[in-house]
Amino acid sequence: MPNILILGAGMMGSAMSVPASDNPSHNAVRIMGTPLDGAIIEHARRTGRHLTMDRPLPDGIQFDTFSLDALDRSLDWADMLVCGVSSFGVDWFAGTVAPRLPQGMPTLSVTKGLLDNGDGTLTPFPRFWAERVGRHIPFCAIGGPCTSYELADRRHSAVVFCGGDVGVLRKLKSALETDYYHVSLSTDVEGVECAVALKNAFALAVTLAVGMTELADGEGCAQAYNPQAALFGQCVREMGRVLDLIGADQSNLAYGVGDLYVTIYGGRTRRLGILLGRGVPFDQAMEQLDGVTLESVVIARRVARAIRLLAAKGKARLEAFPLLTRVDALLSGAVGLGIPWREMETEP
Amino acid sequence: MPNILILGAGMMGSAMSVPASDNPSHNAVRIMGTPLDGAIIEHARRTGRHLTMDRPLPDGIQFDTFSLDALDRSLDWADMLVCGVSSFGVDWFAGTVAPRLPQGMPTLSVTKGLLDNGDGTLTPFPRFWAERVGRHIPFCAIGGPCTSYELADRRHSAVVFCGGDVGVLRKLKSALETDYYHVSLSTDVEGVECAVALKNAFALAVTLAVGMTELADGEGCAQAYNPQAALFGQCVREMGRVLDLIGADQSNLAYGVGDLYVTIYGGRTRRLGILLGRGVPFDQAMEQLDGVTLESVVIARRVARAIRLLAAKGKARLEAFPLLTRVDALLSGAVGLGIPWREMETEP
Repeated sequence: MPNILILGAGMMGSAMSVPASDNPSHNAVRIMGTPLDGAIIEHARRTGRHLTMDRPLPDGIQFDTFSLDALDRSLDWADMLVCGVSSFGVDWFAGTVAPRLPQGMPTLSVTKGLLDNGDGTLTPFPRFWAERVGRHIPFCAIGGPCTSYELADRRHSAVVFCGGDVGVLRKLKSALETDYYHVSLSTDVEGVECAVALKNAFALAVTLAVGMTELADGEGCAQAYNPQAALFGQCVREMGRVLDLIGADQSNLAYGVGDLYVTIYGGRTRRLGILLGRGVPFDQAMEQLDGVTLESVVIARRVARAIRLLAAKGKARLEAFPLLTRVDALLSGAVGLGIPWREMETEP
Repeated sequence: MPNILILGAGMMGSAMSVPASDNPSHNAVRIMGTPLDGAIIEHARRTGRHLTMDRPLPDGIQFDTFSLDALDRSLDWADMLVCGVSSFGVDWFAGTVAPRLPQGMPTLSVTKGLLDNGDGTLTPFPRFWAERVGRHIPFCAIGGPCTSYELADRRHSAVVFCGGDVGVLRKLKSALETDYYHVSLSTDVEGVECAVALKNAFALAVTLAVGMTELADGEGCAQAYNPQAALFGQCVREMGRVLDLIGADQSNLAYGVGDLYVTIYGGRTRRLGILLGRGVPFDQAMEQLDGVTLESVVIARRVARAIRLLAAKGKARLEAFPLLTRVDALLSGAVGLGIPWREMETEP
């Protein structure tokens, strides 16, 4: 009966309280908001529901507003921590929370993303935190296709927990798995995290095709999957090449591709991709999406920049990433809409 | 200005007449039906439209009913042949048509599939025909995600022509590519054909999740992508393992995955998968789908059988294919509906 602290009351962190509560170990579960989550915590206390996800949260959860004292008390109480901050809270977590974590605390992050080191290398968050904290905290992370609202609806979801210590991974899995939340384990943190972070960048590319088809044939038109599938295939190709670049095993591709699939249909990136595909310039599209967290934009730019840097050093071929390069240029406003069909064709 | 003969007036063969006519070389195009295509040819002559695809065919095409004499005359006229028979017409093509092909005739097949040799090995159609015909005919084939009706609608589609001779592949590409039909080339026939044939088997698996969710939450329910994405990721994993088994390059995975994507949404296999997912037994589902060609069922069984045979010889691990094995058992009626979630979980 482990005590599970979820830090961050965003949609994904909060959704993790559902399998955490349903797990047969009868865990005790607390959700503590970040300093930005005040309204969510207040709403959850009052209604038992999540403000933005608009779904009930499990009975018996304690909701806490953030303070350093409360954090210290909860960390003292907890057997494991689920870190539910968004990728924009990664530095805050590193600076404010990580130094307070008890030695050895199993810590599982829902955050997907990569940090740009500025030299063509990218760092997954668990490694970034491990390097910053300087003590032994087994930072782990979740990869694989899983949207928060479907997890809260208890739909079948298959994810992977990755981290350096299989014993810690098993402990986390044992506390969080349910008959609908299916957990694989991997010690290849770099490979898993890169694969699942990339999906954000590439989901933008695939959803461009949705918008382009709507532009041609009217919104809501049915049965236009050839263009999407063409871009999906190209994304798989370029994702595989990024994994090669960072020296990660190609077996991680399946996590990234599954995640790509769910992001195209179930994620927020779809809205931006469709707007861009309809020919709306990036700046105007961003205005229409006011308030939406656009990790996809951040990650597309970071990965494209890393590849350019590697290419400048002769360590990567820019021509091997025509779609990613194009998406990056589109986001920066450097080019108008267009798919590099010709550049995507290959010959032996 | 090559003369292009399309043999087989099914949807995909007929749809190929659209890029063939739009290609800037001003090709002359003929469609000859197989002995089973009489009604389609008659309808096309009378209305200019395709009977089952329900779309106009390009102006200026000659439609011919099948006879051996007419075939010989058309083969004499043609500079290249597009073979549009379904996978169920592969033997007919081998026995009746292939022996009449002029030496060296570039021949491009739209048919996806694999023949089961009964010993755990599978043969792609181009190799089967090449072995049967005994003369030099450069048999090539099309892979990649492309549904017939979207091609007929001139939507962007990215495919790959595969075959042994790059010169022949370039000739075919030059005659058939357009500004919406994007053609890559590959000499890895085995890899491409296996990857794209597999998509049929695995598309069944992913669409099971659609039916299962409908069963739980009602038909047409929105936003249920976690279960589909979980199975999609597992399909990518198992497709990659099949490619390993046959010694094919993993780079072909992108074709199979793109094709999987379009088959889930744009293809006929979806209907069967959804029915099975709703819990309809296979026999009853087949009754409801009367008249639908189920290459997916054939290929799922063939690949599963091949893997079982290889496993019996110690050359494959059956546990590495839990989803394919389950789909095969479901199709044979050996088990009821169920996803092998536990077996799909992995550990380092």
